This record gives sequence, C-alpha cells and structure tokens, in this order.
Amino acid sequence: MPVRTIYWEDDCCKIVDQTLLPTEFKTIELRSAEEAWEAIKALRVRGAPAIGIAAAFGVYLGVRDADGDAAGLIAKVKTVADYLASSRPTAVNLFWALDRVVAKAASMQDAESHAFKAALLELAQTMIDEDNAVCRAIGEYGTALLNDGDTILTHCNAGGLATASYGTALAPVLVAMEQGKTISVIADETRPLLQGARLTAWECRENGVPVTLICDVASGTVMQQGRVQAVIVGTDRTTANGDVCNKIGTYNVAVLAARHGIPFYVAAPLSSIDMSLASGDEIPIEERDADEVRNGFGKQTAPDGVKIFNPAFDVTPAELVTALITEKGVVRPPYKENLKRLFSA
Amino acid sequence: MPVRTIYWEDDCCKIVDQTLLPTEFKTIELRSAEEAWEAIKALRVRGAPAIGIAAAFGVYLGVRDADGDAAGLIAKVKTVADYLASSRPTAVNLFWALDRVVAKAASMQDAESHAFKAALLELAQTMIDEDNAVCRAIGEYGTALLNDGDTILTHCNAGGLATASYGTALAPVLVAMEQGKTISVIADETRPLLQGARLTAWECRENGVPVTLICDVASGTVMQQGRVQAVIVGTDRTTANGDVCNKIGTYNVAVLAARHGIPFYVAAPLSSIDMSLASGDEIPIEERDADEVRNGFGKQTAPDGVKIFNPAFDVTPAELVTALITEKGVVRPPYKENLKRLFSA
Repeated sequence: MPVRTIYWEDDCCKIVDQTLLPTEFKTIELRSAEEAWEAIKALRVRGAPAIGIAAAFGVYLGVRDADGDAAGLIAKVKTVADYLASSRPTAVNLFWALDRVVAKAASMQDAESHAFKAALLELAQTMIDEDNAVCRAIGEYGTALLNDGDTILTHCNAGGLATASYGTALAPVLVAMEQGKTISVIADETRPLLQGARLTAWECRENGVPVTLICDVASGTVMQQGRVQAVIVGTDRTTANGDVCNKIGTYNVAVLAARHGIPFYVAAPLSSIDMSLASGDEIPIEERDADEVRNGFGKQTAPDGVKIFNPAFDVTPAELVTALITEKGVVRPPYKENLKRLFSA
Repeated sequence: MPVRTIYWEDDCCKIVDQTLLPTEFKTIELRSAEEAWEAIKALRVRGAPAIGIAAAFGVYLGVRDADGDAAGLIAKVKTVADYLASSRPTAVNLFWALDRVVAKAASMQDAESHAFKAALLELAQTMIDEDNAVCRAIGEYGTALLNDGDTILTHCNAGGLATASYGTALAPVLVAMEQGKTISVIADETRPLLQGARLTAWECRENGVPVTLICDVASGTVMQQGRVQAVIVGTDRTTANGDVCNKIGTYNVAVLAARHGIPFYVAAPLSSIDMSLASGDEIPIEERDADEVRNGFGKQTAPDGVKIFNPAFDVTPAELVTALITEKGVVRPPYKENLKRLFSA
C-alpha cells in the first residue's frame, strides 16, 4: 500500500515532512492554521491535491478554538482561508479546496458551534476519500494507455506524496502492477528542489516499481535512445484551452517528447482544471528564492552577486499535450470543446 | 583580462582547480604525469581545449626525468600518452593533443635527451598560444553573428576556464565588450556538476559580463519569454557530418531553440572536429559515477538502492545546428561538404 501522505489522527493533521526525504521518513503534526501555512509554504506538504487537503485541515485548525456564533465562525473561516491562500500562488487545488470550505461554512448559518466545526473537519476528511477515488480512477484510465513493458518518464513528483496516498501521474503504474503488467519509470531529478530524486525515486522504490533516476539534462538522451514510451506528469493548474501549468521543466520535456513522437500525458484531476482561465498566459507563476539554486543542498554552488531566475512552474501549450487523464476519462483535443463538455456533463 | 586557466611556471604546470569554484579560487601545481591524469579525471581541469593542453604538459612531466636515448624517450612518450588518453574518453582534443606530442617525439629520433625534452615542453606551451589565437578568432567570427543588446544562452562552461584563457563559446561576448557592444548571458546551471553555476556564472561576474543563472529546467521558459536571441555552446567532439557532442543537456537546449526559431551556434575549434568519424553515433559517451547525482551537493539527494543513469555528454544532430563557429570562419550546412572543404583548404 502506498504511504499515507496526509491524514487526521490524535486531534491533529499529520503529514509526511517531504523536505526530509529521501534520507529521513518522518511524520509531523499540524496543530494550527499557522503550522499548516508554514508546511505548505516550506513544501513540507506539496503537490497540488495534497496542499488542497492540507489547506482544508488548516481552516479547521484555525477555527476549532474560536468562540462565537455561526456568523462569527463564518467570518473567521473566510479570514483563515484568505490567510492560507497566501501560502502559494500557482496550484489551483489550493483555492478550489478553500472555496469549498468557505462555501460549506456559508451554508451553515444556523449551525451551533460544535456542529459547525465538526462539519468542517468532516469536509477535509471527505476530501481525502474523494482524492483516493479520483487517483484510483486516473490510474485505471491511464493504465489503459500503456502496454506491458513500457517505460514512462515523469517529471517532479505527482505520485502518492503529492496526493493523499495514491498519486496522479504514478497511479497508472500502480494499477498496472495490480493487473500483472510491469511499467518502469524514469524519474527526472527536477532541480531546484529535486522532487524527482528525493520523492519519486523514493516512492517507486518503496512500492517496488522499477525506477531509474536521471538529471533533467538527460531527458533528451533517454528519448533518443528509445527508452521512453510515454511521458506522464501531473499539473498544478490546467486552463480551459488545455494549457498545462506544472513544475518548471515540464515544458522542456513536452517539447522533447513531441520531437520524438512520444505521447505526452497529463494526469489532471478535475480539481486542477481551472475553467475560469482561458489560457496559461493568465496563470500567476510563483518565483522562488534564489537561494534554492545558490545554496540548495547545504553547499554553495553558485557565486555571490550573480543574478538568479528561479521560476517554480512553466506552461506547456495545449498543442503539445496528447491527452489529459481525468477521473472522468481521457480527454483529447480539441480541449476547449472537450473540457467544456466534461464539466457540463 | 580573463583568468589564466593553465600555464607553465616554476618548473611545473599550474592550473586553476575548478572543483573548488565558485567559493575558492586556487591554483594548484602538477608535477607528474600521474598528477596530470588525476587532474583531468577529477575535472580539476576540464573543457576540451584545456584538457588537451594539460595532457601535453602531462607527457612532458612524464618523461622529463627519464634516462636514455631518443629511441627510449620516444617509447616512453607513447606509454605516457596512452596512459593520459585513458583519463577521459569523449573530448577529441585530448587525443588530438596527444597525437601531436607523439608525432613530435617521433620526429626527433636523432635529438639528444635535453633538446628532446625541451621540444616537448615548447610544444605544450605553443598549444597555449595557439589556443589563445583560436579562441580570439572564434570570438571575432562569433561576435559578427550577434547584435548589440542580445542575450545568449549557454550550457555548461565553454568560457576561459575551458581553454587556456579566452574561451570558445564565451569569446564572442568578450570581443563584443571590446567593441563597445553589450551581450548578456543566461547560464544554464548544468547538472550534475554545475559547471554553468560554478564556472560560467563566476567567470562572467569576474569579466563584468551581465549574467543570469537558471536551472536547466528553465531554459524553455526563458525562450518562451523571448529573452534569448541566440544559443552558443562549446563542443567536445564534432563529427564530419556536423553532429555535435557536448555536455549532457545540450541536445535539450538545441531542440528547444529549434522550436523557438532561435539560432543554435556551436563554437568549435578545428581541434574539436573529428573528421575520422562519420556521425555522432560513433562517439564513445562517458558515463560517470552515480554519486555525482546522489551525493552531488555534499548531501544525499536521492535514495539508496535506486538505479541512476549519468551520461556526461549527448549528441545534437547536425540538423539542429545553425552554424559552427571555427577559427577559420563560420561554417553552415551542408556540413559534410563544408567541413571537408574547410579541412582541405
């Protein structure tokens, strides 16, 4: 069974502290909205689906000790949700989850305090069950796109550690294993924060998935050598036209895959698809601290006084995306029409 | 003036130990063939032109204390050259320089010992002067391809630290500065060994060249943003058909440049062009230790027990190369015909 990345136990939200992997596996406890905010900001919990769930727990943690009636609690929920929304700007699941919590709160104007709070906690826990079902469905639809013996290349980590437990981009590999097929993984290291090396490689090893780790620079070489049959990545936000925002470097992989005629699939829960944005140009791209590049691993690797550009995400235009794998099925171009149909179904 | 990367002084070969940059600038002394071999193997001196020169000094260091007549010395030169050739397999300059030394030795069958050895030392020193002239000419031809205000993206380090002092891919930038033009540089970090971060960014800063450092994964993004007007990289070996072998990740950059209609130039001294190989398929690609990926930053960043693929070079097919910038001029496709003409001129 995959590791549980985020869950509720002992009256607190427990998460695997992903900044300590791959050398230390440690579960930490979040007991306040502030601790949830810090955990998201510092990437102790990361991955679009998982941070949505963490934020939902964060709202509950922020109001559970609050006094007052429903009106006061509703206002407090909004304040805490706004605060948590400021942790990271790009992944839409964060806002999607917070919007659900705020809407739930708004629907409980007549609830007494205890029931109000219990409903918020229940919603966050429901999101875990939903996430498991979504990932499982993505895994089943995705597996059908793969053949026994295939090797997929993935970038960053959209495995179990990015969700409650099952993963999006890696779910097709786990389902394939259950079906007796063998799918191997090539994991891009994914500078600057090395989620591929630290998390995807670790997670594949834990789950018995054959994995080979490469530096990001070698993705072209393994494609030239015919070692990759498909690319599957996750997404932090996909827009109504099918543009895919994901970890920096995803665009490079997509361009290389297109050159080599390799299908480029995106595992995209509906919660990561933002139909309010027409295209990827409208997505705010988080720029992170230069120190991630200069002093990423306890050793200075770039000189002082040199300018560093460190965007955390990039946008892959829809034309490079072979298909989106959602929990409602595989969506192919034209995305504008087919996504609209999916959401109105 | 650019830093002197390799030179002869105090009866030894002095090199900048590039494994210590960017935090420490230290010149070390090579006093034996074994020390030269280790310095090349461990990348204390690196860059195709510079390791050719280091190897030439290495042969002299290996025979200077040898007894015997010319015939014995010629045999010794061959033995030491074979030994030094085993340090790294990919860059052709290494073999080109050693072949020159062996040929020089073979031409001195009647020389007395002192003169024989002095001629070998002189040849190595001549290679430095030649390298400076070659780099200068590449700089002048290359500058003519750039406009004032352009930004070039470069991968790895083909600056002064890769040569005796002037650089190949960065020479056009230095010549442009002398001409009063401003060319900015975007330096790819270049995992696993971070030559872009540690060396190119450092060297640009030292020379007053405006430089922005990015992780390799962001090369696509800066092209999408219209921030790159040309790519210039070096080469460890270019074959008769124009296929370019260079640091791993160069191919990724070339594919991205092609997608964005950005010219992709290769600064290629004639000594790096191997007319004996028909195509890049024939080039032996050095695979380096997994520990460069797993423990590269002084901290373990990938789990134990996970397979790692760590090729040091890749091959960019000629069709993606806009032009080769040589010391004899700019060579454009068709490369097979035009390179043959260049070498027979």
